[in-house]
Amino acid sequence: MNALVKLNEDDQDVVVQAGINWMDLNQKIKASGLWFPVDPAPGASIGGMVSMSCSGTNAYRYGTMKEWVLGLTVVLADGRVVKTRRRARKSSAGFDLTRLMIGAEGTLGVVTEAVLRLAPQPRNLVVGLVRFERVGQAVDVVLRVMRSGYKLEALELADGEQMRALNESELSEMRFEEKPTLFVKFAGPSKWVVQEQIEMVKELCRANGATKFEVTDEEDRMGTIWAARKSMAPALIKMKKRETDLFLHSDCAVPISKLPKLIEGTRELIERAAAKAGNGWFCANVGHVGDGNMHSSIICPAEDGAKAEAVLKEVARLALSLDGTITGEHGVGLELRDVLVEEVGEVGMDVMRRIKKSLDPRGILNPGKVLRLEDEGTQAKL
Amino acid sequence: MNALVKLNEDDQDVVVQAGINWMDLNQKIKASGLWFPVDPAPGASIGGMVSMSCSGTNAYRYGTMKEWVLGLTVVLADGRVVKTRRRARKSSAGFDLTRLMIGAEGTLGVVTEAVLRLAPQPRNLVVGLVRFERVGQAVDVVLRVMRSGYKLEALELADGEQMRALNESELSEMRFEEKPTLFVKFAGPSKWVVQEQIEMVKELCRANGATKFEVTDEEDRMGTIWAARKSMAPALIKMKKRETDLFLHSDCAVPISKLPKLIEGTRELIERAAAKAGNGWFCANVGHVGDGNMHSSIICPAEDGAKAEAVLKEVARLALSLDGTITGEHGVGLELRDVLVEEVGEVGMDVMRRIKKSLDPRGILNPGKVLRLEDEGTQAKL
Repeated sequence: MNALVKLNEDDQDVVVQAGINWMDLNQKIKASGLWFPVDPAPGASIGGMVSMSCSGTNAYRYGTMKEWVLGLTVVLADGRVVKTRRRARKSSAGFDLTRLMIGAEGTLGVVTEAVLRLAPQPRNLVVGLVRFERVGQAVDVVLRVMRSGYKLEALELADGEQMRALNESELSEMRFEEKPTLFVKFAGPSKWVVQEQIEMVKELCRANGATKFEVTDEEDRMGTIWAARKSMAPALIKMKKRETDLFLHSDCAVPISKLPKLIEGTRELIERAAAKAGNGWFCANVGHVGDGNMHSSIICPAEDGAKAEAVLKEVARLALSLDGTITGEHGVGLELRDVLVEEVGEVGMDVMRRIKKSLDPRGILNPGKVLRLEDEGTQAKL
Repeated sequence: MNALVKLNEDDQDVVVQAGINWMDLNQKIKASGLWFPVDPAPGASIGGMVSMSCSGTNAYRYGTMKEWVLGLTVVLADGRVVKTRRRARKSSAGFDLTRLMIGAEGTLGVVTEAVLRLAPQPRNLVVGLVRFERVGQAVDVVLRVMRSGYKLEALELADGEQMRALNESELSEMRFEEKPTLFVKFAGPSKWVVQEQIEMVKELCRANGATKFEVTDEEDRMGTIWAARKSMAPALIKMKKRETDLFLHSDCAVPISKLPKLIEGTRELIERAAAKAGNGWFCANVGHVGDGNMHSSIICPAEDGAKAEAVLKEVARLALSLDGTITGEHGVGLELRDVLVEEVGEVGMDVMRRIKKSLDPRGILNPGKVLRLEDEGTQAKL
């Protein structure tokens, strides 16, 4: 179930079985000059990525799974098989079953095969590191980059506490000042284009109070900087004081201009809850600033689990009040089911429930995830 | 129902009522430096564009409605209202009701409001016109452009017959050689970037046997060339010999490498049918070569209507045999219902029918479009 079925180089697409790992896929097609740009955690397989509608550090530039899947083969609850699309790059042929399955978390069918779009591999890569005094300064740079017409390769943000976790973890060979830090990737079909982007970003950063601006196209240094970005989650796990400590995090996304309010508001909510608990929680923020998706993390003793989960629900509500979403890329699962109704309303929940019941009346596919079927009694009848 | 509700410049999104015309919308937000890049026929409103999952000449560069709608407000069959999303740029919060409604042709709900993404207006626009001897040469250039990492603004293709219709219509002040012709738009945040693209495309065209390559950044000339592209449908209508003649067309999309086969095969199918009918049909091809979407048109006497419709269904089947779709942007409506099953299979039809029945059990929303509810008796039971 992890085979590459067919690479269509000319059309820049590939047919794969659901079990293939995305990094293995990219390794296998490397010689073609193409790649699949969605980059979640290293262990993810395409089937899981489809089901979670995942994204990652490349989503600001390239979009999420919703933009990179052309068609799916799905086994339904009754064992019948549906192939949602072939290989055309767009289609208006009936309801979009492909996108209905993407992000359904396996509750509507089991994905067995996918046709994926591919992109030319980025060229002339340059990696940058920019330090600010305040999160708002970094966000302001991002908003201006977006208005410029240039599209960078990646725009990631970590706050001072996150940089502290990275330092203390010693997972990076670099040591960082513990201030809000932008991780940036530039690329383009020619060096000129990349240089133009760098000059523009440099000027914006200077105008917005950046205290450090480093760019490099030196292979080792680029690897070291980006490895630091990719070490953020393991670094947080290393902040556990006891084996039994919990690592919990949010996955909210908001309109980008609202990110400073989300990050500040989240800090206040968590600090208040932490003070009440009185057990010295650690809290940090890192995320995909280019698409407004932030992960606020809490490390706390196991006994504070319920309190930490409760405050993360408050964080999700804060995101909703800022016109955002409770989950940008991780999905609903079991934990966010009760907040989902606050995002889509009772009517939205009822629509999802009707769809679920129409395709899986006995509730055998990933039962209990996304929504609770037993709630339906409370809904109005059509 | 055609108001601009709120423009959020910083976040590059806008909330609009469904009745707003896309050109009016772009006029209203012009001063912000932003635009909504999906460009169907001039009369289209956002609500209709959502329901058809439309695209147009900008879709190769920017994507279709599926990529530009962040959220929808929809009235359901029972009068309840669902708001699918707020303004975050991505979300994994439950089933993707936004995309389910996009392209549902009004059969699942009535769209009343939409949150749309906006893009920075293209800058340093240059328009180009390239002539080839054969369609395959033009397609080869397009495939190579796609591999280059450069993304042009638009890539449109008309065959020799289409250029003949344009000449005979006298809708353009220009006269064209009646050969396959690429209409190209270049743009970018700086003149350097645009110049690089032009040089690359020029070199590719020369290497692929182009017999004419013109580019211009002169406002009037750009307008004239692009107006010629936009006059293709009216030019075809002027090819009617009698008031009662029919103008019918396909809307297939295939993987781009298959376009020459689609165009050649379509020509053969139509020529054979036209010869049989013996009434001198006119046939031409024009479309969005950048995303593989072609419109093959037939002008024929009214009495040949059934024959022309039959051959266009054969064209749709040809597209399916080339791994394509029966409709890239125009939707299923009434005409393609019986071919849709050949694209998504009986199981796909059954899934769509179940969703339709779960949300509109009495079938009151745009009845009969996309699928026939009465077919359900032939389906297996879950």
